[in-house]
Amino acid sequence: MSKLKNTINSILHIDKSFLEKAQKRLDNLTKPQGSLGRLEEFAMRFVAITQNPLPDLNKKVIFTFAGDHGVVDEGVSAYPKEVTHQMVFNFLQGGAGINVLARHAGAEVVVIDIGVDYDFTPLNPHLPRGNIEALFISKKVISGTKNIRKGPAMSKDDAIRCVEVGIELADEYSKKGYKIFATGDMGIGNTTPSSAIAAVLTGKPVSEVTGRGTGINDEALKNKARVIEDAIMINKPDPSDPLDVLSKVGGAEIGGIAGLIIGASANRVPIVIDGFISTAGALIAYSLEPNVKDYMFASHNSTEIGHKVILQKIGLKPILDLDLRLGEGTGSALAMLIIEAGVKIYKEMATFEEAGVSKNE
Amino acid sequence: MSKLKNTINSILHIDKSFLEKAQKRLDNLTKPQGSLGRLEEFAMRFVAITQNPLPDLNKKVIFTFAGDHGVVDEGVSAYPKEVTHQMVFNFLQGGAGINVLARHAGAEVVVIDIGVDYDFTPLNPHLPRGNIEALFISKKVISGTKNIRKGPAMSKDDAIRCVEVGIELADEYSKKGYKIFATGDMGIGNTTPSSAIAAVLTGKPVSEVTGRGTGINDEALKNKARVIEDAIMINKPDPSDPLDVLSKVGGAEIGGIAGLIIGASANRVPIVIDGFISTAGALIAYSLEPNVKDYMFASHNSTEIGHKVILQKIGLKPILDLDLRLGEGTGSALAMLIIEAGVKIYKEMATFEEAGVSKNE
Repeated sequence: MSKLKNTINSILHIDKSFLEKAQKRLDNLTKPQGSLGRLEEFAMRFVAITQNPLPDLNKKVIFTFAGDHGVVDEGVSAYPKEVTHQMVFNFLQGGAGINVLARHAGAEVVVIDIGVDYDFTPLNPHLPRGNIEALFISKKVISGTKNIRKGPAMSKDDAIRCVEVGIELADEYSKKGYKIFATGDMGIGNTTPSSAIAAVLTGKPVSEVTGRGTGINDEALKNKARVIEDAIMINKPDPSDPLDVLSKVGGAEIGGIAGLIIGASANRVPIVIDGFISTAGALIAYSLEPNVKDYMFASHNSTEIGHKVILQKIGLKPILDLDLRLGEGTGSALAMLIIEAGVKIYKEMATFEEAGVSKNE
Repeated sequence: MSKLKNTINSILHIDKSFLEKAQKRLDNLTKPQGSLGRLEEFAMRFVAITQNPLPDLNKKVIFTFAGDHGVVDEGVSAYPKEVTHQMVFNFLQGGAGINVLARHAGAEVVVIDIGVDYDFTPLNPHLPRGNIEALFISKKVISGTKNIRKGPAMSKDDAIRCVEVGIELADEYSKKGYKIFATGDMGIGNTTPSSAIAAVLTGKPVSEVTGRGTGINDEALKNKARVIEDAIMINKPDPSDPLDVLSKVGGAEIGGIAGLIIGASANRVPIVIDGFISTAGALIAYSLEPNVKDYMFASHNSTEIGHKVILQKIGLKPILDLDLRLGEGTGSALAMLIIEAGVKIYKEMATFEEAGVSKNE
């Protein structure tokens, strides 16, 4: 807990003088002032976060946290639970959506077992060998959450440990020289705890933050909302205590994501937030320390209805709106490309003087 | 004219059976069906346009058409006219926004002098030499348009020639093996003819399609709208004759863009449309032959108010919404990255069977 507290206490607002300096440079480039819109905003924020007037973006990493969910027993997902570990195998072999888009964005993928109900120890003969495309890191805190309709997802100690795992990864990858982080998730059933977290921490009714996840039908959606309402009623998560919410109706991967955001902010590393599950983690982080907002980029606007609600609560405007709802970090990977475009504009364009172009009258 | 007519006559609707085949492949990849949203749409359209079940996207090119505008004499722009040729120099030296974003997208930039009021012949000692970052092609039809407040922008023959230049470039680059084209523009004052075209061909009032361009103030905006109203009143462009509209209130680069779109469609090459000026060209092309719609991707939603009006008229939904208003092809370059992401998803992701992942229940 002291690691978490110390890290949170070290997160400051960004220094706005860097925004102004970056704006000055942007305004002298060969284009009408402000004509590159949000690309300019991304560049300014990147400069202010890193406090580097000529920031690098050469090392990029996407952290895909994986965890299982006991609440799958309640029929909340269109997919069986074993898909979580099967998809971890898919990540390692490079065949998943996140692998394709991370390659496209020039980013590395790190897959973290923080709470999968599967044995990934090296002796397991089913593990993929050779041609591994993503780094696998074992940071298992739990083997899946308990069924939140019947009791808490995990102990408070385990919830804190999950957040600390994220912080440790942020510290490690910041030291290794990575210049931008992104979040991602894998966990069959994890829109259910994400909706529960959204309902508790935004105060919105469950029906307004609960969607179809991987694609359940109307009847299953009604059942899912009932399950979430029951989970909140039975566990009574305390909205003023985000770690209580995480332990009672959350998930290990959501805790890891919250920790990564906190750790990124403490290390002044810009962090891109993927879709609905990642913003549930972001909401935990933001509720613990609102200053983390300064370090986050919201990658996209998911079709999952609770996503918009959380983004509004935090006050983040998404970069892309492409009807994505896959998770894994796929939205993050695409948004990284756009943020990088902004940083390159800032660094590589000629000024009016350099190019011999007349200024406006 | 016969080249234009023949090309238009060869443009067919895309074959929808290719959409279905592509959808089938996408639905078997390791993700919930449809969960990659518009990326899947882009991939399907790309397959159907190229009629290639495994399309390539290795050679990409952005065509930035440059032209001058006599109407600048009426005070419609925040920048002096010489900025058009100065920016062409900037393109060739790699310092402009389009250079940075094209490099980021892995696309080549081709700059076409189709109507600049400047002598780009090789003997001109002011031309940049060495370290040229973009290909320069001279296809000069006119040396700037005439002032449309006083008479037609150019002759009908010149307007047709501009469109044919675009078609010829599309033919040439299709033969050279380029797999995706994009449009871009450079021309101080060219939001004025674009707004005029939008008003005439959509039937909307001038005030609803006229914006601040590079950033004029309220008074200049009022003047700009009056200039456009005068230009339409004096020239009486015929809304049922897009080439009449182009010749009376258009611009050379807008004609070139229209031709490129027509030529791309005839060659079944997907074409990305940049911002407001490019969609004015797209509207000319669409008015000549509505089937071109099947081949176009609208890159982004510009802050220039007439842009949305044209996109709605054609029925295109933009890919990005980043408050851009620079032109040059900058929105195109970014959108190319997103379209390519969709094609890569389609080509590179593993199927459920390949990855050993359980399907939904």
